Amino acid sequence: MEAFRVIEIKQSVFDNNDRKAGELREELRRGGVFMLNLMSSPGSGKTTTLVRTIEALKGEFAIGILEADIDSDVDARTVALAGARAVQVHTAGMCHLDADMTAQGLEAMGTDGLDIVVLENIGNLICTAEFDTGAAKNAMILSVPEGDDKPLKYPAMFSMADVLLVNKIDAMSFFDFDMEKLVDRVKKLNPGIRIIPISAKTGEGIGEWADWLRAETKKWKQA
Amino acid sequence: MEAFRVIEIKQSVFDNNDRKAGELREELRRGGVFMLNLMSSPGSGKTTTLVRTIEALKGEFAIGILEADIDSDVDARTVALAGARAVQVHTAGMCHLDADMTAQGLEAMGTDGLDIVVLENIGNLICTAEFDTGAAKNAMILSVPEGDDKPLKYPAMFSMADVLLVNKIDAMSFFDFDMEKLVDRVKKLNPGIRIIPISAKTGEGIGEWADWLRAETKKWKQA
Repeated sequence: MEAFRVIEIKQSVFDNNDRKAGELREELRRGGVFMLNLMSSPGSGKTTTLVRTIEALKGEFAIGILEADIDSDVDARTVALAGARAVQVHTAGMCHLDADMTAQGLEAMGTDGLDIVVLENIGNLICTAEFDTGAAKNAMILSVPEGDDKPLKYPAMFSMADVLLVNKIDAMSFFDFDMEKLVDRVKKLNPGIRIIPISAKTGEGIGEWADWLRAETKKWKQA
Repeated sequence: MEAFRVIEIKQSVFDNNDRKAGELREELRRGGVFMLNLMSSPGSGKTTTLVRTIEALKGEFAIGILEADIDSDVDARTVALAGARAVQVHTAGMCHLDADMTAQGLEAMGTDGLDIVVLENIGNLICTAEFDTGAAKNAMILSVPEGDDKPLKYPAMFSMADVLLVNKIDAMSFFDFDMEKLVDRVKKLNPGIRIIPISAKTGEGIGEWADWLRAETKKWKQA
């Protein structure tokens, strides 16, 4: 074994996104629209989870989906088929949405009459965690095949999420994934986070997740 | 089903990274060092694949690993244990390495006596594809649980990779993953790409991958 060292490289500074995000959040609150910012790696099951969520809640709430993506429109197509109002937002290579970009997407979609908007953010555990989008709450999906060590590697995302969906639990026996270790690592970063194991494939846990979203939406509309 | 629309958002322009990358590549060529830029999503198995690769080649080549990560040093620790010279590069939140950051990492590690350097890039299918790091070749890992639709969503990465490792093929029966569809989608973007199915867990395909890396390293050193 040879030794290794750690070196640090500096980051550029971003402009004032927080003010814009605060304004957007207030505007949505006045309109009675609960916006959820949904983040994850590529392939963790954001879109399938969204389809399940729409199915669970579409009788009660009018739902809009902002599908952010580098390219393609497959996700917007999918969620529109499931019964949501949907807009695909192309980011021209950028790996996140900030509040201003989110506002552009919302304006293009129109939020009139909507109760819930889900921003399906770019598939990415890094950049997306750095920008307040103006959402009421931040949700994150981690899928079992990605591994229980991810909180060690992407602490910012796990720290800023209000709720963590652990997806693909139907595949748990197939991977070395220790749910207790995961929960320990996540809670160490973020003691207040709600963790909900789900399988978007089988539907397991979707009820609990829909309950959370229903309760948060009602709280938001009453505030 | 309601309609959806596509809107475009503009990207900021990056500075002159290509010149720096060209210079670094030439410097490495003169030193006889083959640098591979290894990219993937979080959790696709980059580090496990690297450990297998080091095991397969460490008798023949001196290998150095640059572990780029937002945080933590678990990966550098792991590959150092496998017998490679390793440096962990923290990027302070940035989601990619450019040529200058790579050069800083190489300088910190020292390339004297090395035949192969693998840059384990940040877990990310977007930002990493936008920057020439100065590597001789670009490799990408896609893991089966991420899905066969990823070339539709991250075309830049699939277009710029010289070789694609499709990892976790031991889990193929568990997921709806169509290898033929994947290959079609990838080859449409990038007809010349080499695609190698592997399982870093069982070792399947690692021989073919090691052969590719061996051949490319020898070509590079003779050029």
